[in-house]
Amino acid sequence: MKVGVADTTFSRFDYAPVVLKVLASSKPPVEIERYTVPGIKDLPVACKMLFRKGCSIVIACGMVGPAAIDTQCAHEASLGLQAVQLAECKHILEVFVHMAEAKSDTELASICEDRARKHAQNALWLLFDQKVLQQRAGTGRRQGREDAGSISISR
Amino acid sequence: MKVGVADTTFSRFDYAPVVLKVLASSKPPVEIERYTVPGIKDLPVACKMLFRKGCSIVIACGMVGPAAIDTQCAHEASLGLQAVQLAECKHILEVFVHMAEAKSDTELASICEDRARKHAQNALWLLFDQKVLQQRAGTGRRQGREDAGSISISR
Amino acid sequence: MKVGVADTTFSRFDYAPVVLKVLASSKPPVEIERYTVPGIKDLPVACKMLFRKGCSIVIACGMVGPAAIDTQCAHEASLGLQAVQLAECKHILEVFVHMAEAKSDTELASICEDRARKHAQNALWLLFDQKVLQQRAGTGRRQGREDAGSISISR
Amino acid sequence: MKVGVADTTFSRFDYAPVVLKVLASSKPPVEIERYTVPGIKDLPVACKMLFRKGCSIVIACGMVGPAAIDTQCAHEASLGLQAVQLAECKHILEVFVHMAEAKSDTELASICEDRARKHAQNALWLLFDQKVLQQRAGTGRRQGREDAGSISISR
Amino acid sequence: MKVGVADTTFSRFDYAPVVLKVLASSKPPVEIERYTVPGIKDLPVACKMLFRKGCSIVIACGMVGPAAIDTQCAHEASLGLQAVQLAECKHILEVFVHMAEAKSDTELASICEDRARKHAQNALWLLFDQKVLQQRAGTGRRQGREDAGSISISR
Repeated sequence: MKVGVADTTFSRFDYAPVVLKVLASSKPPVEIERYTVPGIKDLPVACKMLFRKGCSIVIACGMVGPAAIDTQCAHEASLGLQAVQLAECKHILEVFVHMAEAKSDTELASICEDRARKHAQNALWLLFDQKVLQQRAGTGRRQGREDAGSISISR
Repeated sequence: MKVGVADTTFSRFDYAPVVLKVLASSKPPVEIERYTVPGIKDLPVACKMLFRKGCSIVIACGMVGPAAIDTQCAHEASLGLQAVQLAECKHILEVFVHMAEAKSDTELASICEDRARKHAQNALWLLFDQKVLQQRAGTGRRQGREDAGSISISR
Repeated sequence: MKVGVADTTFSRFDYAPVVLKVLASSKPPVEIERYTVPGIKDLPVACKMLFRKGCSIVIACGMVGPAAIDTQCAHEASLGLQAVQLAECKHILEVFVHMAEAKSDTELASICEDRARKHAQNALWLLFDQKVLQQRAGTGRRQGREDAGSISISR
Repeated sequence: MKVGVADTTFSRFDYAPVVLKVLASSKPPVEIERYTVPGIKDLPVACKMLFRKGCSIVIACGMVGPAAIDTQCAHEASLGLQAVQLAECKHILEVFVHMAEAKSDTELASICEDRARKHAQNALWLLFDQKVLQQRAGTGRRQGREDAGSISISR
Repeated sequence: MKVGVADTTFSRFDYAPVVLKVLASSKPPVEIERYTVPGIKDLPVACKMLFRKGCSIVIACGMVGPAAIDTQCAHEASLGLQAVQLAECKHILEVFVHMAEAKSDTELASICEDRARKHAQNALWLLFDQKVLQQRAGTGRRQGREDAGSISISR
């Protein structure tokens, strides 16, 4: 099994070491294919290229600037990632962090690390252990922050 | 007939038991295929995979966070669900609840339960009894809330 | 010639009788194929199914709730309708009424009736009498309201 | 060479005479194929039909209402026009005028006339004389208004 | 290797000389294919045409007006560029500058020059030297402005 890791030079956080560390713990082991592009809008076609190289899943890491136009760029990138997933019938886990999510560089880096680490784990579960995900259905899991927890109807 | 049920670990409400209960009441009986993914943006390709496993319809359950960026994510997920439906020429009933719809966890869970239950019923009508839907055309049916009722032109 | 009529149980107004009355006046006569789905986001694939049943054109009737998220849903539905039209190379006339367009139920029903009636006529012109539409080009025609009229450059 | 001209009955300005006058001046002469539809959201499939009739380029003329929902409709129409262009690998020149661009009917008509005339000329350049466009690259040309002019870096 | 350069007559800045200068420095040398269109919404199909002429990558240069509707146009153009990239499985580097990014013509030209120059270099790295990009992953590179620099988690 080959896992693609796509990232950008725009991002202020280097996601790859975080992702690679989780993937290195995979049983069975996975092969890694990396590809770095300038910005998030270059990620969709990068992911497509990674699938063409035989990846079974891709983790797409990007950072989104704080302005309204940056949010629009993220939207375009995300729609591109949707199109690639549907054309390939394979998952792309989107590790996008918006600079506006954090009040400081420290918090920003912390969100990036948490989101990358947890989505790398999600990628492994999607590949090898989907039952774990099903057991966690509806439990309010969060990547980048603490879990939100579950709610239920009062009876 | 096989019915797909896709849901997420992000959601704070566990939709599957509600959906499965309605589907269990189906006459003729339906087979269930489940798939849980991390978040709503992973649902479109999940639905595509469920169709590839032979589902005739899919119920896609997700929860949407309260921030503006969450609404954008829901938009991307919904557009992906549109694309899958058109590629497969099969329905996906979208059970998305926005956290901003409710003022409390109790209300949120109540909306989730109501929307999931009614859309599971809609799925069965689409599969087996389209005449029921036609009889209800233009009658202001709501999922997640009370029906709004019908209006007509004064003559 | 077969004309598809797709509508929803969500809508508070029952468009079908208005549309069917206009279509009944068609010369040459047209066959009708109906399909009712829960909401507007179910309309695109419903229209695709109607085209698969041999329709030459579809009239897609829906009502849009008053909240911002409803407007987003309408946007998703409309984009789906665009995709279906382009894939089939056939027209879908979109009879969508936004609840926010009207200040009362009476006005809302009036807009619905007017828009449905005029677009049913447009469907017939597109099928049988395109010259009528060309004669009306640039004349400020409105569905749901009074015509806006034409303007011209002062010479 | 055949040039398609698509327009709407919704528009308050009749673009076709302006466009046809420019196209009539073409050397070599071009053949015209016209198609009028109700509104801008009907234009994408209309353009596709025009390409199927052998058009090498299409000029799509529409007017956009002043409300926010009208802007959304224009967005949907424009995305449809993008899809048609990419499927056909042919240009569609979009002559859309937003009613909110003008403060009076006179100004609105003037914008319409200017935009239609200049884009009809652009269509001819795209078909027969691309070097003219290259010579004008980066010179701040505007359709509907006066040109904005060029800027350059201070050295 | 052939590199496409697409630009517009709408833009107030002439990007091509900046881009061509960088491309001229390429080792190995690259062939250039140019195409100028009226505005940014004409760029997606222009890029598709450039790929059909054998380009391995395209640099798409455009300027975006300051109004909200211009931002929407840029969004449509960007979505078109996404679609072309995915259909061709080749990169398009988007050199779009929004007039609202700058407070003066001088600043605007400076952003244009910087963004065009750096993305032309990115294009060469994508073609010939992807390792350079990987070394720069997560380092906060910016086109049009000064680099933002990298952040890391405190340990």
